[in-house]
Order: sequence, then C-alpha cells, then structure tokens
Amino acid sequence: MNFLTLTTDFGSGDDEAGVLKGVIWSIAPGAQIADLSHEVTRHNVLEGALLLERCTPYFPEGSVHVAVIDPGVGTARRAIAARLGGQRFVGPDNGLLTLMLRRAQTLGQPVEIVHLDRPQYWLPAVSDVFHGRDLFAPAAAHLANGVPLRELGTPINDPLLLTIPEPQRTSAGWVCPVVAVDHFGNLSTRIRPEQIEDMGMVIVRIKGRQIHGLVHTFGERPTGELVALFNSAGFLDISVVNGNAAQVLGAAPGDVVEVYSL
Amino acid sequence: MNFLTLTTDFGSGDDEAGVLKGVIWSIAPGAQIADLSHEVTRHNVLEGALLLERCTPYFPEGSVHVAVIDPGVGTARRAIAARLGGQRFVGPDNGLLTLMLRRAQTLGQPVEIVHLDRPQYWLPAVSDVFHGRDLFAPAAAHLANGVPLRELGTPINDPLLLTIPEPQRTSAGWVCPVVAVDHFGNLSTRIRPEQIEDMGMVIVRIKGRQIHGLVHTFGERPTGELVALFNSAGFLDISVVNGNAAQVLGAAPGDVVEVYSL
Amino acid sequence: MNFLTLTTDFGSGDDEAGVLKGVIWSIAPGAQIADLSHEVTRHNVLEGALLLERCTPYFPEGSVHVAVIDPGVGTARRAIAARLGGQRFVGPDNGLLTLMLRRAQTLGQPVEIVHLDRPQYWLPAVSDVFHGRDLFAPAAAHLANGVPLRELGTPINDPLLLTIPEPQRTSAGWVCPVVAVDHFGNLSTRIRPEQIEDMGMVIVRIKGRQIHGLVHTFGERPTGELVALFNSAGFLDISVVNGNAAQVLGAAPGDVVEVYSL
Repeated sequence: MNFLTLTTDFGSGDDEAGVLKGVIWSIAPGAQIADLSHEVTRHNVLEGALLLERCTPYFPEGSVHVAVIDPGVGTARRAIAARLGGQRFVGPDNGLLTLMLRRAQTLGQPVEIVHLDRPQYWLPAVSDVFHGRDLFAPAAAHLANGVPLRELGTPINDPLLLTIPEPQRTSAGWVCPVVAVDHFGNLSTRIRPEQIEDMGMVIVRIKGRQIHGLVHTFGERPTGELVALFNSAGFLDISVVNGNAAQVLGAAPGDVVEVYSL
Repeated sequence: MNFLTLTTDFGSGDDEAGVLKGVIWSIAPGAQIADLSHEVTRHNVLEGALLLERCTPYFPEGSVHVAVIDPGVGTARRAIAARLGGQRFVGPDNGLLTLMLRRAQTLGQPVEIVHLDRPQYWLPAVSDVFHGRDLFAPAAAHLANGVPLRELGTPINDPLLLTIPEPQRTSAGWVCPVVAVDHFGNLSTRIRPEQIEDMGMVIVRIKGRQIHGLVHTFGERPTGELVALFNSAGFLDISVVNGNAAQVLGAAPGDVVEVYSL
Repeated sequence: MNFLTLTTDFGSGDDEAGVLKGVIWSIAPGAQIADLSHEVTRHNVLEGALLLERCTPYFPEGSVHVAVIDPGVGTARRAIAARLGGQRFVGPDNGLLTLMLRRAQTLGQPVEIVHLDRPQYWLPAVSDVFHGRDLFAPAAAHLANGVPLRELGTPINDPLLLTIPEPQRTSAGWVCPVVAVDHFGNLSTRIRPEQIEDMGMVIVRIKGRQIHGLVHTFGERPTGELVALFNSAGFLDISVVNGNAAQVLGAAPGDVVEVYSL
C-alpha cells in the first residue's frame, strides 16, 4: 500500500484539495490519500511545520506527505522533496520541513533532500500559481509509485530552515512563546517534560495569570479552571477545562509563557 | 475490504484527525477510512450518538466505527468496543453508543460489548489526553484486522447509557424537545411517522408558531415558509424552505415541539 | 481501481456526507472515494458546476463524480447520469453538468446522458428529501462497478442547462461578471488569456478601481496590492497579494469586471 497525505492552507471548500487527489490518482492509482488538514492559517509556514511534526511520525514507513503552504509560489523559491527518517515529504523550500528534518537529525536517521528540477516528473504545463497541482502532487505520486528520490531532482543540503521559537533558560526556569492555538483554544509551547524538575512545584505564568502545578488530564479540575499540562505531543499547553484558553486569556501565538520552580 | 469511520469533536483543522489515520494504517494497512464528521460540538455526546445512528447503518457489515467525543479522557471512564448488530464500534464508555445499542436490541440483533483492558492492543505509551490515538484507533485497527472483539478486552453488560429525549404522550398528541440542529438550521425531533395519525390534519407548535399539516418535501412550499416534515432518518423536522429554521425561530436543542391532531 | 468523488452543499459536519460513503461502499466495496467539497454554498448550482469544471478533468478516466446540490429534491426534476468525455457524473438535472457538457462538446468528446428511471439501481426505499443517499450514490456505485450507463436509465438529450455568465465584447474590450469567490477572497471571472491582446497593456476595472497590467504570480507585487492575473484554471482573477480582494473591494459574484487595452 502507498500512503499519501495532504497538508495545505487551501481550505476544504474550494477546488484545490480535490484537484490534488485527481492528479495523484491519475499517476498513482493505488495510492491511499488522507487529508491531514486544509485549514492551516493562510501562508503560516510555522503552523504547517508543527502539524507535520505532530502527524507524520504516526504514518507507515515510506508514506509520502505533500505539504503546500506556499506564499512564494511562482517566485524563485525552490521545490523540494525529502526523505527524513522513515517518512517522505514534498513541498516548497520555505521551512515547512524544519521540524521533521531536525527530528531525523536528532534521532540519527537518514536525511536526503532533492531540488525538484526534473520536469518529466511534473504535469506537462506548470502554472505560476498552483505548484501543488502541477509539481508537488505529481512528484509525490511518482515517489509513491517507487521512483527513487534522487531520480526526481538534484541533491541539496541547504534547505531553508525556520527559526522555531524554542524555550530559553532564565535564572528561575524557562521562557517560551506560545507557538500554536488549536481548535479548542489550547495554547501550545515547545517546553518539554524533561525541562521541568518537579511537576507539582512548578509555576506557569501567562498574560499576568499564574498556574500552580501541572495536571495530567482535564478531568482533575473543575470546568472553567485554567490549567497547564503536557499535551499529546509532549509539549506544555495552557488550557481551560472544558473552555477556551485563547479566548479567556486573550492569548495568541507569540505571547510569552514563563515556567519556574517554587 | 476493511472499512473504518471516524467521528470526533477534534475539528478538521488540527492534527488529531490525521494522527488517527496514521495510527490505523500503521496497524491495518489495508483499511479504507472515511471521515463521518470531526465537527461534532465539543464534548456533545448526544450529538455524536445521533450522528452514529444516522450514518453507521449504511456501512457494509463489519465496518468499524471509531467515535471520540471524550470529555472524560484520562479519568476513570472505561474504554469500550462493541458489536451492535452488523456494525462494530470503539470509543469511550460515556453513552455514545446508546442509540445503536438500543437499535440492535430492538431489532433482536447480536450485542457484545467489551472493556478495552488489554494493553497489548494499544500503542506502547498511552497519554492522559489523547486516547483516540493511543487506545481507540489501535483497538479499531486490530478489530479491522480480524482480531476478535473478546480478544480486545473483558465482556461487560453495563455500558453507560444516555437519556435520549424521546416523545412523550400528551392528552392531545406528543411533545418532544428539539434534539439536534443541522448545517441548514433544520430542527430535528425524535417523533416518528407512526406517532402521527393523520399527516394532513396535524398541528405542529414550536416557539409560539403553528404549522398546519406536514409536507413531504421542501419543493411543495414557497421559499421562507415554515414547514414540518419527516427527515431522511425518519424523524420529524421543523424547517424553513430555503432558509434556516434555527435562526428564524431562535430555536436550539431542548426547545419544545408539540404535535397534536385537529 | 474505481474512483468516486463527492461534491455537495451538505457541510462537512453533519451526517449526509458520511452516509453517502456508506451507501457507496455497501454497493461498490472496492471504490476509492474522495471528497471534492461539501462546502458549496447552499443550493448554489453554478458554484457546484464551476467546481466540477475545475476538479474533475484531473481525475483518472472513468471516475464517477457524484454532485448533489439539489434544491429541487422530491419535486419533478429528473435525476440523471452522464458520460461527458472521459468522466462520468451522477446528480440532479438542474444544470450542475452544464460546464462539463459544454467542455466535452467543444473538445468533440463522447456525450451520453440518461434519466435515472430504473429503481432496481436505487436503494429499496427512496425518501423525498435525500436522493443523494437513496438514488445518486447507489447509481454512482453501480456505475463504478461496471454497470453500463444506458443500463441505469433512458437516454435523454435535453438536460437542463445553466446560463453561464460569459465575457461579452465591448467597443474597448470585454465585460464579465465575477462568477465565484474562493477561500482566499480571489474574484474569478470567465475571461480567458486568448481574449487579452497584450497582457502588459491591459486595464482591468472593478468597483471603481483600476489595475494596470497583469501579473503572472503574487510574488511580483508587494503585500496588499490589488492585482489581476490568470488563475490556475486559466481564468482572469482579481486578487489582493496576501490579502482578500472580496473584502477589500466589497465585491461579490455578479459584480462587473471590465477589461480593455490602453
């Protein structure tokens, strides 16, 4: 079985997501295609990178992930494909793969990136405005069909990387901006469990509010209470039990979260 | 072919729905996966139960339906899997399966429910906040692979059941709350055709408005008219032709619908 | 492989889209199903027709496209299925197929349309309100299974056609209404490149604003600038770079776009 996934900022209501599926099946009729999300905030490459980091490690080895958050479409930005650990990726060279690349490097897994510069693996005509259809989807389908990565283009080792807002040491603990807000209004950071010495003795501050100690799950506290906990991806979240922390706090990506021990 | 469906309150824009697909295909690579809805109102177990009742009977026998509306994740609530008639289900033990269980019992079909208490059928690490990924999706994938239900856990016969707001007899007819509002603003009850003696002679009251007689389809009346008709699932709906009854009436789940004969 | 797609105005959150998948797989268990969109504006047949025109030509030959934007469900409007060029379609006879029919005729491709009047290819009971489930999905699944089109119903040659707002010649150039607004607020017309004599010397007018010359891609101009360019389907769009032209201009379908040479 060949698995492909789609991550875009196209929205689910327009034609683009459907077009990608048609192009993929026309080249790789045996492919199974899953939508990860078409609701990435428009042109928000960091949000796309975070979504790929959360989803793609759960897919079968060799899956091909097409990611099209592509504000630079039609400009000089390169199109790339990559093997990063057990997963494969296709998309614009704008930092979308930063977190998966770093992950593969950290785990000592194989890393191989090519510049998609071989038109024989694209659609015959390439528009200036929809490389998802004309270039990324065809390349991904050929990969799924078994065409080797290096056959699709010239190897490169200088992909564009995002600056990911990682936790910074302070005298008392850590500081890290909110990097994402999910559907439920949970505010996500990049703070990891191993950065917290004592879960029960920690104070989390955001927007002038203080949270004493972490919980393991929402059910430990009453509805409406502001809590801090490690989310399912292993990062510190600020949440409101059965509520919306982003709304309650008026918080958004970039707002500062401080963590320190008592 | 193995068919799995997903019904959640995760939203379509975040990572969770995609993660479920990755986990399922990693265990059951031959599975066909369909999204039923990821837009169930957050934590609204009744809405999820109604959606399962409407959709799942149309799937091929043996399909596996993963339902994750799970406000109690990480607490003592049980995880369960069930065979209810020809369909199979996996989700939290919070009443999500109430209507399908009742349906199977009414039709005299097989009913078998197990407590998912065998960690060998889960992901190796189970978080406190995402049992959809760590427990329900793996169990569902094993079911789809042919692992027998009783192999996944210990049989139980006391699943938690919702109180479904059913029609009550009055001296003049029936009274029933609105149980759901759909995308078009149609207001749905649990009133069945066999509870109406004479379709043409009936009066439907809601929010101080009276509707005389039922229609069979929207096309019978002009745009903007308030009508009552049996919906595609066989329940009485209050609708506005080419309009939004919920908005027009300011109505919501819980509002009372009265039906009586002239 | 048998490919089916779904285009509806049901919304992604309710039960109808899921029900279609269950019905299809129950009849055609080998079918691969792709959602094109369930977010077509309610009852907007033109919007559905445009979406089918943009998406379906990219699918493998013989794919079956189910389109259910069906304000006349339950009335005398016919149900039809068609072979139009390499693609097959099932839906109400209300103009949804107008653009694909015209395309096939223009390209000299085969055209074959039948009135779906053979109940043996429907579900046993047909409701007055959900022909997507009871009639279109079953007919599409039988088509995907290899049942010949003419077996499903009686040939017809008078399908209902929409009046598509096409560009009209003026003394100075062309005038055409906006026909669609996408997720990003881009305003789409039906003006084609071959209707523009000199891309650099053209003036585009909309809502009292003038745009001098066309661009090839958004990256040519700074954020916030109003531009005109040919979209990925080959039609003239009015857009705002990294912005929302519909909002900026207060424009909507029906607003007039004028194009003339300097």
